[in-house]
Order: sequence, then structure tokens, then C-alpha cells
Amino acid sequence: MLAYVVDGDAQLQDVPDPQPPQGEALVRVLAAGVCNTDLEILKGYMGFSGVLGHEFVGEVVQSDNDHLRGKRVVGEINCVCGQCRYCRLEMPHHCLDRTVLGILNRDGAFAEYLTLPEANLHVIPDALRTDIAVFTEPVAAAFRITEQVALTPEDRVIVLGDGKLGQLITQVLALNTKKVTCVGKHAAKLELIQRAGIETSKIDDPIDEGADIVVEATGSAAGLQRALELVRPEGTVVLKTTVAGKTDLDFSVPVINEVRVIGSRCGPFRPAIEALALGTVDVAPLISHQFSFDQIDEAIEAARDPDCLKVLMTMS
Amino acid sequence: MLAYVVDGDAQLQDVPDPQPPQGEALVRVLAAGVCNTDLEILKGYMGFSGVLGHEFVGEVVQSDNDHLRGKRVVGEINCVCGQCRYCRLEMPHHCLDRTVLGILNRDGAFAEYLTLPEANLHVIPDALRTDIAVFTEPVAAAFRITEQVALTPEDRVIVLGDGKLGQLITQVLALNTKKVTCVGKHAAKLELIQRAGIETSKIDDPIDEGADIVVEATGSAAGLQRALELVRPEGTVVLKTTVAGKTDLDFSVPVINEVRVIGSRCGPFRPAIEALALGTVDVAPLISHQFSFDQIDEAIEAARDPDCLKVLMTMS
Repeated sequence: MLAYVVDGDAQLQDVPDPQPPQGEALVRVLAAGVCNTDLEILKGYMGFSGVLGHEFVGEVVQSDNDHLRGKRVVGEINCVCGQCRYCRLEMPHHCLDRTVLGILNRDGAFAEYLTLPEANLHVIPDALRTDIAVFTEPVAAAFRITEQVALTPEDRVIVLGDGKLGQLITQVLALNTKKVTCVGKHAAKLELIQRAGIETSKIDDPIDEGADIVVEATGSAAGLQRALELVRPEGTVVLKTTVAGKTDLDFSVPVINEVRVIGSRCGPFRPAIEALALGTVDVAPLISHQFSFDQIDEAIEAARDPDCLKVLMTMS
Repeated sequence: MLAYVVDGDAQLQDVPDPQPPQGEALVRVLAAGVCNTDLEILKGYMGFSGVLGHEFVGEVVQSDNDHLRGKRVVGEINCVCGQCRYCRLEMPHHCLDRTVLGILNRDGAFAEYLTLPEANLHVIPDALRTDIAVFTEPVAAAFRITEQVALTPEDRVIVLGDGKLGQLITQVLALNTKKVTCVGKHAAKLELIQRAGIETSKIDDPIDEGADIVVEATGSAAGLQRALELVRPEGTVVLKTTVAGKTDLDFSVPVINEVRVIGSRCGPFRPAIEALALGTVDVAPLISHQFSFDQIDEAIEAARDPDCLKVLMTMS
């Protein structure tokens, strides 16, 4: 099969079809999305080698499970041991022996086929378009925030970053609170949010400090310092950006202000699939490019453009 | 009166006695303690000018309140407006217009007299020794952690730092959980903790990672990075150190691990006074030096020695 393999360099290669081990399904990839994490991995983040990609929709072509065979699915990306301390503590996505699709010791979704544990797969409604369902994984990551922070309708929330993830987070949090503002650099991206009836602010415009919750989704190391400036005393900063390398931070003010900083990663698929199927989170306007899989070099190049939003690839 | 005045330089000076405004009491200082924050202020932290010092026991010599006059008291250091957003949200120690005794726009306790709002004063039991009661403010800061983090008896807690504050935090948290380890550099300081029946570890010795809670009380900027390494996924790091300046931090691992980092400052006086009066927190072994007030230069010098614990001064 064709697969986009990272190994120092990265390129489309012909590789053997994957063989699903016991408990895993073989999935034919229908479509995949390019995430900023993919671009970070291409720069060396996580030291990953193997097939890149973790946002996908596929069709199960081989499985012992009658409920999965032939179905369209999305897949949770953390594959866990079920035995270790964190699995037993019901924190499976922190499993000590985990592999992560296209990120850590497991071949990913930029390929004609992938394998995943059957327990990771979620059948999606027939009525849900494939290009929309590709957003399940990042929308789930946005819903993760609602599991970690007790939001009330009156909380004032600032989302830093108008990129793919910032857009999704803004929409998801706007389902839960009335006062969400997305702060970004790109007029066109902010306009998408305004069209959804949500407030925006340009990064250089003055904005009231003292937000109850600030979500850092800029994808840049400098975002954390700005988030710490904007949050109120005893408020919460949620960190979504994972970038390799160190950041220079002044932590005396957050200590004095007793700020809480919470890292946030993968989230629950069920509410994400529901939100996409019901359209309460509207992702179609975020698709800025569509390519066929053999155009992956152009797809990656397009995703690197700061003005770009979601780049999708169609495999078959 | 004599007062130790910071103004670029710092020295003992003869200054006018303070006049308590409406609602404040005049307190004759009996004893005061030197805190690391005082040493940081002397290095320029907070840009403070005025009378230094915020840990004290005094006797109320002038007050409209019959319950206070003539009594021995300790005093909460944040003086608040009662009107601003954070006062109304019941977070008075984050008052936007606050003054802080010996730290922010208010003369402090290294003086023969000070004034504080009557609402800030707590009468201490007659049986509680003055030199012990001086520890109320830092013990309250240790109790603050128990307000911010839901501790269970089974939580594994690491306290980084065997200095004054690390010692108090270790003792307070050992009241709430069974598995506390204090990690420090100084054999003599760690021995004090061992004598209280609490586990210790030298900083260079191997220690199991994956603690549920790590409290950073090293007083050094490097402590945060170490805390982030020792905490488990979805665990909590409590930051007690306030140092001026920036720190180089790698935040990708805490984001992946969804760690919570919480700043922690001033705490509740009532449980602190009780713990000192009952001896459940034992501070007498922490008094390493006692000076009279006119020896304050020697007292400050002694406090700067890394092997020193608490330095007390007797005013009268």
C-alpha cells in the first residue's frame, strides 16, 4: 500500500499492508486531516518514525466484531495496555505503555490502511459526511476542556488562537458559556467565528484582562505568557499547545494570583461525533484545502501556510 | 520609633510613630520573623519601599474594639478594599486595591509599632508562646494548599525544599495524608523532618516519579522544572516559590500529561493558630537564631545563610 513514512525525511512510499494483531481491526482509510502536531512531528517533535497522521475516517475491512465490519468509523488514537497503574486508575490515555496513532510507536493514518484496537473505533452515523467526521479527533480534544474545567454560563472565556484548534475550541466552549472571545491574528479566520455569532478580538487590540478561563491554542510558545497576563486571580489557563523546546516564563505573577494552569490533550469522541452530526459545531467552513492522497506533499505544504485552516486528503 | 526602612538601601531608622486611621488598630510589635520574601524584597522584588516585615506577634495598644485592646495578636497581611470585583467575589486576598504588610504599599512589622485593620487581627491564646505564634503567617500559607487541593489520605505527596516553608508545608500536609516525602539539600534540615516521623530524600537520591501532588517550595526558579518531572499524569503541582525573573521551562510534557499547576500564596490564620497552640505543627526546632531588634542587620545576615532556618527578632 501507499503510506507517508517519516524516517528522518518524510515521503510517500510503497510499504506492506499492515496485519491487524488479535483484537485489532484493519481499516481502509477514506479521508485524513493534517494537524499542527503532524507539522511539529515533521520538525522532529516526539522523535517519531513511521507512518504519520492521526485524524481519519475509515471503513473497517477486517474485524472479528460483526458490529464493526463494513462500517465507517473514526478512531481514538491512544492504544493502551489496560494493565499499568494509570490504566487501572481509569486514566487510559496516560497509559505508560501506550502507543499513539501516527505520534508514538504506531503507524498512522496517512496510508491506504491502518490498524487500531477494536475498542478504539466508533461507528459514525450514515448521515454524517466523511469530510466532516474527519474533525472528530480535534473536536474531541476541544471537548476535553469541558471535562477538566467546571464551566458556568457566566464565565468569561478567552481563547487565544484562531487556527484550526482555536476555532473548534471556541465553538465548543460557546456551547457552554455565553461570554467567549477568540483572540487571533488573521482577519479571515476571525470572520468565520464572527459569522457563528461569537465575539473576536485582534491580537493587538486592547482586551479586558481578568478572564475566568483562558485557553492557550496559539501553537506558539509565547502564548502561555500572554494567557497568564489575561487570566484573573484564581482563574484557569488551559494549555493546548504542545511545542518542542523551552519557554522563558515569569511565574511570580501567577503564583501571587494563585492561577491554575492545566495541560489538556485528547478528549471524548462521543460528544464530538454528536456535535458534528447535529451541526452544533460547524466545521465545513474550516476546510480550506482538499487533496487526493497522492498529492500529500502539496497538502503538507498547504498546511504550513499560516493563512490555511484544515487540509483534508481523500484516500479512496 | 525605630523601624527598618527599605528605600533603595535598607537600614534601622528613627521614624514617626504610625497613626492608625479609622478602623485600624495600633499594635506594639513584640516579635517578628524573617521570611525569604523579605530577602527577595531586599534584592528588589516587588519594588517595595517602606518598613519591611510581615511575620509578627504584637500587643494592641490602641483600638476602638474592646475585644482587641491589650490583647496579644497576630495579623493577616492583606488589607483590602471590600469594594472591588475580587472582594465581591469573596477572594479578598486578591483585592485590586490591596496593600500588603511590609510587601506592598504598607509599612511592615520590623518596627516598634505597626497599624493594621482590626478585621485583620486574631487574638492568640494566652498559653501560646510569642516565639511560636510568630509562625502563624507561614503556617497559614501552608494550610492554603489544603484549601486549593483535595487531598486524600492515600495521596503520595512530594514537598521540594527543606527550608522554613518546606518544613511547615511538610508538617501540615502530613496531617492530611500518610505518604509525604520532603526532598531537600541539607542533612540537618531533613533530620528535623525525620524526627517528626516523616520521610525525607536527599535531592540527588533517586525518588519514584509519579507523585499525586508535588509542592514546589525550594525558593529557586529551577524547582518548577523538577516538580513537573516528578508529578504523575493529571497530578497537581503547587507553586509556593515567588522569585523575580524568568524561568526556562519545557511545557510539552506537562501538557501531554495534563498536569495541573497551581500558584499558592496566603492562607487561613484560624487553623494555623490552632495547629501551633495544639502543637500538631511543631515549630520550636525551626528557630535557629534569636536577636534583639537593634541587631537586625545581623538577623538579616543570618537569614541569608542557606543553612539557617527561622530567624526571630524580639522587639520589646
